[in-house]
Amino acid sequence: MAVGLNPPGKLHQVEGIHLASMHSGVKLDPQVKDLVLIEINKDANVASVFTRNRFCAAPVIIARQHLVQNPKPRFLLINSGNANAGTGEIGLQQAIACCRAVAHSAAVNVSDVLPFSTGVIATELPLGCIEKSIPELVGDLDRDHWLQAAEGIMTTDTLAKAFSQQVKIQDKTISITGIAKGSGMIKPDMATMLSFIATDALIEKPVLDSLLGQMISTSFNAITVDGDTSTNDACVLIATGASGVTVSGSNSEFLKALQDVFQQLAQAIIRDAEGATKFVEIEVQQAASCSDAREVAYTIAHSLLVKTALFASDPNWGRILAAVGRARIKNLEIGKVDLFLGEVCLLKSGLPDPDYSEELGQAEMDLEEIRIVVNLNAGNDSATIWTSDLSYDYVKINAEYRS
Amino acid sequence: MAVGLNPPGKLHQVEGIHLASMHSGVKLDPQVKDLVLIEINKDANVASVFTRNRFCAAPVIIARQHLVQNPKPRFLLINSGNANAGTGEIGLQQAIACCRAVAHSAAVNVSDVLPFSTGVIATELPLGCIEKSIPELVGDLDRDHWLQAAEGIMTTDTLAKAFSQQVKIQDKTISITGIAKGSGMIKPDMATMLSFIATDALIEKPVLDSLLGQMISTSFNAITVDGDTSTNDACVLIATGASGVTVSGSNSEFLKALQDVFQQLAQAIIRDAEGATKFVEIEVQQAASCSDAREVAYTIAHSLLVKTALFASDPNWGRILAAVGRARIKNLEIGKVDLFLGEVCLLKSGLPDPDYSEELGQAEMDLEEIRIVVNLNAGNDSATIWTSDLSYDYVKINAEYRS
Repeated sequence: MAVGLNPPGKLHQVEGIHLASMHSGVKLDPQVKDLVLIEINKDANVASVFTRNRFCAAPVIIARQHLVQNPKPRFLLINSGNANAGTGEIGLQQAIACCRAVAHSAAVNVSDVLPFSTGVIATELPLGCIEKSIPELVGDLDRDHWLQAAEGIMTTDTLAKAFSQQVKIQDKTISITGIAKGSGMIKPDMATMLSFIATDALIEKPVLDSLLGQMISTSFNAITVDGDTSTNDACVLIATGASGVTVSGSNSEFLKALQDVFQQLAQAIIRDAEGATKFVEIEVQQAASCSDAREVAYTIAHSLLVKTALFASDPNWGRILAAVGRARIKNLEIGKVDLFLGEVCLLKSGLPDPDYSEELGQAEMDLEEIRIVVNLNAGNDSATIWTSDLSYDYVKINAEYRS
Repeated sequence: MAVGLNPPGKLHQVEGIHLASMHSGVKLDPQVKDLVLIEINKDANVASVFTRNRFCAAPVIIARQHLVQNPKPRFLLINSGNANAGTGEIGLQQAIACCRAVAHSAAVNVSDVLPFSTGVIATELPLGCIEKSIPELVGDLDRDHWLQAAEGIMTTDTLAKAFSQQVKIQDKTISITGIAKGSGMIKPDMATMLSFIATDALIEKPVLDSLLGQMISTSFNAITVDGDTSTNDACVLIATGASGVTVSGSNSEFLKALQDVFQQLAQAIIRDAEGATKFVEIEVQQAASCSDAREVAYTIAHSLLVKTALFASDPNWGRILAAVGRARIKNLEIGKVDLFLGEVCLLKSGLPDPDYSEELGQAEMDLEEIRIVVNLNAGNDSATIWTSDLSYDYVKINAEYRS
């Protein structure tokens, strides 16, 4: 089902990071991993962002509290299959209990452990099976388990999502490896679905925080499947420093490699979007502001009529135009708008392009990867986002998810 | 397919209004009506609202121009099957040509005629078949043709939508009759899909304008199928005055009957929403402002995850909670939020209700008509909107609409 998405290629170890992944029983199928532990070396700096959904899940609340007590977490514990969201006081206690189990087995403080959960909302976490699995998980930690970790955080994902880059700095090879999960309830707001990315570069904490914000704005914060922001979104960027190579916020080669990892992971989520048959890039050019550009792009991306036309490979571009027309931006001048499907011009200065033909539009819509470009001719800001189409299978997956 | 929607009942004549409806050839099936003419008496007052989509269709532009020239239109010409939107200069000329044909046949001025179109966007109007049908249409005008007119404006509607009320004022019977069409691309913004409502009451123009605004805010502006605002939305309210009975803006009995007609027609659109299997009322109570209440209600209504859970009759209320949590309102206090499905309490002060059981939730979700109530406990304003679920058939209808 996934659009142009292959199983992960070679994943480089990141010195300072050890991972383990197993089936604990949160999910019913004993063949499927549902519990992941990531150990971080003592000296690492860690940056993180979480969902802005006000109904955030218990693990998000506890992770934030632990980060206040201790900005250098040593363990990330992630379960899939149950989001521990909408679970009230019991949910908070269970998230803490998960951390306590790791703290006990690994001989660290409870606040050294950050909990993450993803899966069904509003159902109590099966705490017992998690607690009893922790010792095995701790014993299995290994620097080579990135792929297993990527598998262990999956829910409705059809493929594991992991990506790796290396870059030479001061004659040393720096590695960046990340994993992500997510394929529905995707319209991250300041954060993303779960994603954990690590590098062995040495990066000061303030630089790392700023880098994370910069990276997600053009990756996890530039994708949408269905406009729904999860209660559990989180993204963690770890700089272990184990390579001994200090990287500043202005090393363009490193930034490029890091952005590549972020964007590949974010795009992988869209390529694997629930029911997706198309991978769609929407670029809004020459907007009066960045937020105008994003608003127009997201209005197109969230239009069910555009999404179903994409599914049908139907060059029914009137639907794109109608979405642009209702975007919540000020001073839209329709007489200035250009609209393109790939290289094919549909609308020039608000009027149908005389050279356009249905055949040209059809050829673009038949592609598996579709590019929609809107030029507002109103300023100098632009935005690019990625989205998917709306298929029968999206409805099927989301109507049957709990059954 | 429609949810709790029956064919129109008795439709009262409205003195001063004559209607005609026929197949002209805009639609391919010769059995299907696609052209409607409504004649309005000379003395009538007319109020109207149109789409706020900036890419509004040619007929909307021309209708607005004609209303500036002449606030008392004599004819409304509506074609279904083609929206004449995104058609540039040719579209404008064709909309004028349609008016000219009516003006010629009925011996009125071109500006006395308002054009309306609904159907496929971005395709040239087949002007010839409309022009040649006008004389027959004019000859067929009759005060008893309300149902035929309702049929003639349908596109993907599965049932004609028309509703009628009578109310006694000063010992005289006042009639109110209206028709509407629409079942997709529905999230009206200041206007609606096409709807034409007439009464034989005598209502001054400023009062009529204000009444129309008041009525649509709790009817056509309180519904959504898919969040898409059409390029062609329009709503016209006609007071023919033929009864001789003057009605002020404060006659509560008349207001109630008028609101009933507006709400029945608006709800009929939702009951007949593309692919709908559920009719859903969402009420947000005790919000800090009306716009907060509407924002929360619409965020729930537009959540694809909520819509697919409704389709599956799945009491997966975590999805409703997640939608409330991401609504764009300030100062949401989750510790104050109550959530109900019908009479069943799910969440009390932000926490799961201890008396809730899956069985109770399931019983509510199994109903064809579902009511979701959110109490924000933050103020005194509320809003009620109506929406539908998201089914396989919604995708099917919108993926195949042009083929």
